[in-house]
Amino acid sequence: MLTTVGLLGYGNVGAGVAKLIKTEGTLIADKLGWPLKLAKCLVRNPKATRNFPPDPGLLTTDPRDVVGNPDIQVVCELIGGLEPARTLVLEALEAGQHVVTANKALLATHGLEIFKKANEVNRDVLFEAAVAGAIPVIRTLKEALTANRIQSLYGILNGTTNHIITRMSKDALTFKEALTEAQAAGFAEADPTADVEGHDAAHKLVLLSALAYGILPKLEDIHIEGITKLEPIDFAFATEFGYVIKLLAIAGLHNGQGSLEVRLHPAMLPAGHLLAGVNGVMNAVTIRGHASGDIFLSGPGAGMMPTASSVLGDVIEVARHHLSLESSLRPPILGWLNLKSDAVRPISETLLGYYLRLTVQDRPGVLSAISGILGQHNISIAQVIQRGQTELPGWVNLVMLTHQALENDLQKALDAARELPAVSDIRLIRVEESL
Amino acid sequence: MLTTVGLLGYGNVGAGVAKLIKTEGTLIADKLGWPLKLAKCLVRNPKATRNFPPDPGLLTTDPRDVVGNPDIQVVCELIGGLEPARTLVLEALEAGQHVVTANKALLATHGLEIFKKANEVNRDVLFEAAVAGAIPVIRTLKEALTANRIQSLYGILNGTTNHIITRMSKDALTFKEALTEAQAAGFAEADPTADVEGHDAAHKLVLLSALAYGILPKLEDIHIEGITKLEPIDFAFATEFGYVIKLLAIAGLHNGQGSLEVRLHPAMLPAGHLLAGVNGVMNAVTIRGHASGDIFLSGPGAGMMPTASSVLGDVIEVARHHLSLESSLRPPILGWLNLKSDAVRPISETLLGYYLRLTVQDRPGVLSAISGILGQHNISIAQVIQRGQTELPGWVNLVMLTHQALENDLQKALDAARELPAVSDIRLIRVEESL
Repeated sequence: MLTTVGLLGYGNVGAGVAKLIKTEGTLIADKLGWPLKLAKCLVRNPKATRNFPPDPGLLTTDPRDVVGNPDIQVVCELIGGLEPARTLVLEALEAGQHVVTANKALLATHGLEIFKKANEVNRDVLFEAAVAGAIPVIRTLKEALTANRIQSLYGILNGTTNHIITRMSKDALTFKEALTEAQAAGFAEADPTADVEGHDAAHKLVLLSALAYGILPKLEDIHIEGITKLEPIDFAFATEFGYVIKLLAIAGLHNGQGSLEVRLHPAMLPAGHLLAGVNGVMNAVTIRGHASGDIFLSGPGAGMMPTASSVLGDVIEVARHHLSLESSLRPPILGWLNLKSDAVRPISETLLGYYLRLTVQDRPGVLSAISGILGQHNISIAQVIQRGQTELPGWVNLVMLTHQALENDLQKALDAARELPAVSDIRLIRVEESL
Repeated sequence: MLTTVGLLGYGNVGAGVAKLIKTEGTLIADKLGWPLKLAKCLVRNPKATRNFPPDPGLLTTDPRDVVGNPDIQVVCELIGGLEPARTLVLEALEAGQHVVTANKALLATHGLEIFKKANEVNRDVLFEAAVAGAIPVIRTLKEALTANRIQSLYGILNGTTNHIITRMSKDALTFKEALTEAQAAGFAEADPTADVEGHDAAHKLVLLSALAYGILPKLEDIHIEGITKLEPIDFAFATEFGYVIKLLAIAGLHNGQGSLEVRLHPAMLPAGHLLAGVNGVMNAVTIRGHASGDIFLSGPGAGMMPTASSVLGDVIEVARHHLSLESSLRPPILGWLNLKSDAVRPISETLLGYYLRLTVQDRPGVLSAISGILGQHNISIAQVIQRGQTELPGWVNLVMLTHQALENDLQKALDAARELPAVSDIRLIRVEESL
């Protein structure tokens, strides 16, 4: 048993998908129950220099080697744009192939036609990668929250504009300065129109509306407004009023129950709002289900590997739910062929920082005795505070932060310190600096 | 076509599930393609007073009316505890029923046995509701991130303890005071041991580790430490060091690639960390995939309706992926039988607050003229700031925040204001106070 994958397009995301299939082949087979195989990749120019070149023989310039090729079960459409993507996707479905796509423009524009065809031929079109990169917002709407009336959903769906806005907000750059900088850093395209005018985020919003409300709005029915008219002075006034400015995508029922509102525009949000802290190229979405409450999802909204991660999640879902039916093999229930219950590292071998609070007698030599014991056990002290009376007269709190140390060493040191008559109690809280 | 559901247990979550099946029946049938039917509910005492009483005739005290009943396809185990839950789940699987459960203790303790049985008989055991309430963390690990090596995952998995810690941190309560208050408010059980000693969160951590690493750790191999020993003084010192204290569940590969570390204990986190802002009964998880980057999920971690939302998401997934195979019906590809593309409310009919920045001549009467125009169009002004020179000598910025107004009225007012010779430019940013 083998699930075969063909790529239409081998840009950044295509290369990311090929890389994951190659480097994580064993992991994927362990989880799915059988391997994925990359069979063919359609490109315009097979001789172009590539970031992660595919195995020789995989490149083709003929779409027929992927679309309608009976040896390919899942077609990943990563060309972008409307044509030939639309025709190739429809032909792949007609030929009995499942489709995974990251193409938000295609689905926002031709979604009705494509989803109708997929229903007709009983094939899947999955598109987690089309909205918010690696964040599982499609799955959450389509599966986890099915029994919910979605009262509203809103979020930051474009990393380029969020990066520009973050720079304008935190460093008082003009739009033009922030855009030029983003282009130089590779966060914005040479032609940034689709991002900065809001079209890209609007395409994503259309897809989220379809999943949440069963309504795929026409782009011309949506108010779409980009970030090109924002000025540093507006960010300054926003701060003065206690707001931040974000480019927000919003869909919701009027008053939580009426007709559907869908809009995409810069908005001022209270500075304490969860979305206010989503900066740089990060994306985030809040989905308000009537039963679930507010579900907040955030993470990288774009990029080669995050997007490839979502494409492959969908490819594997197709393999699990559809392709396994064609054989006697079934994927393992928990997503792992061999579930183990050993192999856990004991905490004694863990390296961590520690907050220690010792109740000690207020007399000379105590700190020196304790720090001596810690030193003997390879515990190095980062900060010490000795302060005030405790409830016991003559006893004070001695508080220390340590550098990273082995838990085993620390526990031994504390056992030794507890033996000191000048120590009556030790409290420990681990410090997580690196999460 | 009909998917039939039986409940084992009819407490809060069971009642929530029954309520959603009843009140959202049309919505669910629209999305799934066919209805769900609640067929039987196992209870101990059919005469008990119930929050949302089921239809007459649905209650039974005989487990055989649910488990092994050929008229029931999906069994929701909502009894909790180890027995008889374990036996009933195994018997349901053996009888060919799919199982959805919210029982983290059961799966953390007997997961290997239960998942093995489910694989054998080719039935599903889904448990989104067992971890972090309505937050789709199981789906994210099992589906969206399949192609990722999970470098670490960590989060706040128990709402009761997070509520207590939040009160201790923000209001300097002792553990005992905060616990007593939480019990009175219904956020903590009369016997709070499972929550405050960390057992409940540890069960959830075991399940997340299984999904992320294919290792279902034994509870005795995990360092589990509750919050009973935290004192107000530790929260004060944490603040002084720039930290917050949270009860953290952590699983990860040693140095991102070695053996598995799994631990559950109070930890100090930098105050600017995403998790530091997760307060009260909220739960949150960060999953760090090597390709996806950090995916952060947060929301209500427990409660009747959030948990029921997750149970039903799983029931509907079983119906989509398994039960549809037994008929010619297939669920619609996008999760909606009839995808529409109209029914969008124009932005002109939307009620919003507005930030307006007008470039106006610095002379008497201008503010009065503009506020007159706004008033005529039912726009009420909340705040006004007039400040400094613009780049045009003699022109200043007039900034206003309005109360909520109809977009249509506002645009008409701005059109009229633009006619004034004293107004050269108007910038508008919508204000979202209610998201």
